[in-house]
Amino acid sequence: MISVEEALRRILERAPRLPAETVGLGAARGRVLREDVFADRDLPPFHRSAVDGYAVRAACLAGGGRLRVVDQIPAGTMPKVRLGPGEAAAIMTGAPLPEGADAAIMVEDTVRDGDFVVWPAPGRTPPAVEPGNRVTARGAEVLRGAKLLEAGVRVSPAAVGLLATVGKVRVEVARRPRIAVFSTGDELRHPRTARPRPAEIRDANSHLIAARCRALGLPVRRLGFAADDPDHLAATVASGLVADVLFISGGVSMGRYDYVEPVLERAGVRLLVTAVAIRPGKPFVFGITGDAPPVLVFGLPGNPVSALTTFEVFARPALDAMQGVADARPPRPSVRLLAPVRGSGPRRAFLPARVGVAEDGTLTARPIRSQGSGDIAAVALANALVIVPEDTEAIPAGASVEAQPLPGFPDAGAGWHDPRR
Amino acid sequence: MISVEEALRRILERAPRLPAETVGLGAARGRVLREDVFADRDLPPFHRSAVDGYAVRAACLAGGGRLRVVDQIPAGTMPKVRLGPGEAAAIMTGAPLPEGADAAIMVEDTVRDGDFVVWPAPGRTPPAVEPGNRVTARGAEVLRGAKLLEAGVRVSPAAVGLLATVGKVRVEVARRPRIAVFSTGDELRHPRTARPRPAEIRDANSHLIAARCRALGLPVRRLGFAADDPDHLAATVASGLVADVLFISGGVSMGRYDYVEPVLERAGVRLLVTAVAIRPGKPFVFGITGDAPPVLVFGLPGNPVSALTTFEVFARPALDAMQGVADARPPRPSVRLLAPVRGSGPRRAFLPARVGVAEDGTLTARPIRSQGSGDIAAVALANALVIVPEDTEAIPAGASVEAQPLPGFPDAGAGWHDPRR
Repeated sequence: MISVEEALRRILERAPRLPAETVGLGAARGRVLREDVFADRDLPPFHRSAVDGYAVRAACLAGGGRLRVVDQIPAGTMPKVRLGPGEAAAIMTGAPLPEGADAAIMVEDTVRDGDFVVWPAPGRTPPAVEPGNRVTARGAEVLRGAKLLEAGVRVSPAAVGLLATVGKVRVEVARRPRIAVFSTGDELRHPRTARPRPAEIRDANSHLIAARCRALGLPVRRLGFAADDPDHLAATVASGLVADVLFISGGVSMGRYDYVEPVLERAGVRLLVTAVAIRPGKPFVFGITGDAPPVLVFGLPGNPVSALTTFEVFARPALDAMQGVADARPPRPSVRLLAPVRGSGPRRAFLPARVGVAEDGTLTARPIRSQGSGDIAAVALANALVIVPEDTEAIPAGASVEAQPLPGFPDAGAGWHDPRR
Repeated sequence: MISVEEALRRILERAPRLPAETVGLGAARGRVLREDVFADRDLPPFHRSAVDGYAVRAACLAGGGRLRVVDQIPAGTMPKVRLGPGEAAAIMTGAPLPEGADAAIMVEDTVRDGDFVVWPAPGRTPPAVEPGNRVTARGAEVLRGAKLLEAGVRVSPAAVGLLATVGKVRVEVARRPRIAVFSTGDELRHPRTARPRPAEIRDANSHLIAARCRALGLPVRRLGFAADDPDHLAATVASGLVADVLFISGGVSMGRYDYVEPVLERAGVRLLVTAVAIRPGKPFVFGITGDAPPVLVFGLPGNPVSALTTFEVFARPALDAMQGVADARPPRPSVRLLAPVRGSGPRRAFLPARVGVAEDGTLTARPIRSQGSGDIAAVALANALVIVPEDTEAIPAGASVEAQPLPGFPDAGAGWHDPRR
């Protein structure tokens, strides 16, 4: 058995960095940048009024004043009139200051009197007007040529807005890994099977893993499930190896392993990880094809909790690394246990839990009652995996442990209840 | 001015609960359940071997034993042979135990000797075999009829697996709110404009808000941008009101408000929120049409930071509530400040920040250097908004504050650096 860290090291060492591709602005969200993004102009590109009101010379309003309004400045055009002493221009939020002006005053602080504006309005006591008052100077936010985003970051929705602002309507991002997934097992039936026979169960894992990959924004081909038959398995493996990453669920525990291994070997897959000190998930295996770049093959355990756990711990960092994410380690914030948990001897344990926010703002974790690695009802309720280190007998309620976030992390409150009770 | 809480209360009070619709398994992820989900059978549906090895009667192995192997049990079929005393059946992980058996033993702990299996293997000292050993009893994980998922929860990837397991291939979920979004302003140009004139800026907000809604899984129609012209604005508003929620960015500060208000009024929109004690975001407005159910209209400020902030604080909870999410409040975990922040007098302040995980597991927040509410470069780097309460002058580094997560929350480490420096 090797440690979780050693297994992850071997996997990340082999994860190929996928090439870049160019996408349009509408497809950039969630993708990983493969180029730095720079400002093509100063932002704001002009001295910008931060208020609706009047552009003025601050010096003309020392102790109050009455200014002639000589222009009205709409957004979108540069003012043509230069302000002289004793003059003002009506201006809107976001519009450019005219030459000669060095400040803006708020319309609420003024009274209009025909062609003149009076500041301050009777009964108002605004602070003195200084040069720069209510104005964002040209380039104050961003100077032309400045680096704004770096290769290796995932494009947030606000970053889409930034790309739009600097005119970056085509952007270099990592190609996304193409995923193929199937389950194995003679006992499996399609979920639409209304009445499985007593020894049959419906296939969950290919749907679970496909949904997880789609939540990560990745294109997935679901190949359904393969029977415990070498020819059928070989054909399914072959069709899966056209992807960048193949997930096979089940068929990797000892009894079946004997016949999955030769099938993978004949398909040119070399196994680099075969026994990890993790619970659940010990039957996890990882291999690569001889192609350049290699196809990554993850043999996930047939138990759904094990499948999800090994996906999160081993596959998700690899999928990020393939896209060039600068730091592919998953975050592992501390959470306070609301109930005790037990360890798994020499194996690192990952336990489904519901993480929320207590009244005092701390993250709390309620371990989800689980009947073991087959209990998909438990993991379906989880928004985190609580980590119990190797060789830890038990951790009491109230203690802090690391947790790896899942979708839905964290809840707003700490009052989550288990619908099964 | 009204408080953030009061504004949110008014908005949630008017957010209509959208009807349910039925979707297939492949479309269920991320949707909000509108029905409870129950188990249609026991899980596991049979006494299930947890190991590859042999099904046995525990009593026959007291102190070790040699058993005749009378059957081999593949997954997917019920065993036909009943075990008698002194007998065993080869069995694979996940296969049903035969009648007469009450435990399973691991193949690693045995030696095969022709038709017989010997336990323990020489040199192995496994624990004594008790009834139930390495077996998951029928119904141990889930009893038929048990409630597994409740209406009001968002379907996680693992929950997709659970739906598959219980044969729930068509499921009732909330219809998603249909979104329309446009920006206003004569100064706006399309992002593809290679060289905007000095007074022009590229439209960021309609792209930012559309990307944010898509990240929430919502269908968005982007209507581009409207000029500062009542007829053009009226036509754009009219086409936006066929959606469930309309976002208008810009045109809601005092100078322009005078002409946006009559356009909205003529379109039948009644404003219920017009001045909130929030920074950035004071020009935010909210209204509803007279339809039943009403269309929600969010007038977001034209500044991108203000637009994102008011979206997160006011619109996101409303979008969740429309789908019937049980608790639409956003989570607000405590984070430790890595630098001091300043408040905004009587207004609640939301500051873009990068939240990561320190060595000791605590969440840390690095406030992002920002030149104010127009600084889209700052908010593009944020994965959280740090909250400074009303009437708070300043909060020192090292203190804990609440933060509202954004996409990408949290980073794995605390070592984030600003690419602009």
